[in-house]
Amino acid sequence: MPFVRIDALRAGSDRLDALGRAVHDALVQTIAIPPGDLFQVLTSHDGATGTLRYDPGFLGVHRDDDLVFVGITMRSGRTAERKQALYRRIAELAQEYAGTEPRNVFVSVTENESADWSFGDGVAHYLQYVQNV
Amino acid sequence: MPFVRIDALRAGSDRLDALGRAVHDALVQTIAIPPGDLFQVLTSHDGATGTLRYDPGFLGVHRDDDLVFVGITMRSGRTAERKQALYRRIAELAQEYAGTEPRNVFVSVTENESADWSFGDGVAHYLQYVQNV
Amino acid sequence: MPFVRIDALRAGSDRLDALGRAVHDALVQTIAIPPGDLFQVLTSHDGATGTLRYDPGFLGVHRDDDLVFVGITMRSGRTAERKQALYRRIAELAQEYAGTEPRNVFVSVTENESADWSFGDGVAHYLQYVQNV
Repeated sequence: MPFVRIDALRAGSDRLDALGRAVHDALVQTIAIPPGDLFQVLTSHDGATGTLRYDPGFLGVHRDDDLVFVGITMRSGRTAERKQALYRRIAELAQEYAGTEPRNVFVSVTENESADWSFGDGVAHYLQYVQNV
Repeated sequence: MPFVRIDALRAGSDRLDALGRAVHDALVQTIAIPPGDLFQVLTSHDGATGTLRYDPGFLGVHRDDDLVFVGITMRSGRTAERKQALYRRIAELAQEYAGTEPRNVFVSVTENESADWSFGDGVAHYLQYVQNV
Repeated sequence: MPFVRIDALRAGSDRLDALGRAVHDALVQTIAIPPGDLFQVLTSHDGATGTLRYDPGFLGVHRDDDLVFVGITMRSGRTAERKQALYRRIAELAQEYAGTEPRNVFVSVTENESADWSFGDGVAHYLQYVQNV
């Protein structure tokens, strides 16, 4: 269910893949997302036809062109504590898997509800589950 | 008002266009979106500078590289039943227009409110309507 | 905190940059975003591997291929009046900085909460602030 968008600057496919794995493993480890619940769009911007604009020091965090934007859409219900654990783990794994320093990992979460997802076949899976239980 | 993002892998412009039409026609037919209310970003990823990561079998749905991610932002207020009808129709029309099998159509909806839209000219159109009525 | 996506058709890097500055300055001027709070993804679509689909006249606004989609994710709490001022100012500055006419500026806002942001270092900054005060 989390639908994840990752945007980076001039990243090769290996780095994109590593960042995708970092975010997914963090979701699995901290907020109990099923390992198979993987839906990501990874985009590398070339700096000309697409780019990231950012402040290099906002809130005392030093950022540079290794910056990664992580956008996560998921169902509501996770506590603030779980989200804090999620951000911490994304930053750790981005460093471990992709060599991206934690200072360069920006995360934004948007929440929706059970009726807002179809995983294929034209079905609203979370509603069907409820109805079948 | 729905603002739609569609992401696919190695899709030609004809397939992108067909997918866009499928989603829009489904919105018009199932949740009464005005035919002219069309705002979409369609992106084909080459698999290198941009790609989709997904699980090929999550929830028993078999997916492959024909997978399409559909992200819809719209005002709140649609019932779960209407959303179910929407997902069903998107899947049907994606197959009819673009040859994309229903198993490869993933949809995620995010909702906002009337104050959250400007359709041009710097105006918050839904608020203005309310005020003028 | 606002996380901004801007999508345009066949825009050079100068135009993308100007549009990014227009949206950011409008956020600073109308809803009191700190000047350093800048996080944007700017994408130019070539019309083939990526494109915008839109209606050229919905709600009486005449649009053409200079159309710009602005998607803003930010914390909830801004009034409808502030949002109206924001849309107005984005349209003004898009014209002033990028030569984009107000009729071609489409804006959609999505809101989330304080726990939904990490600006780097794996920290949920808005929560930490609250805890430290």
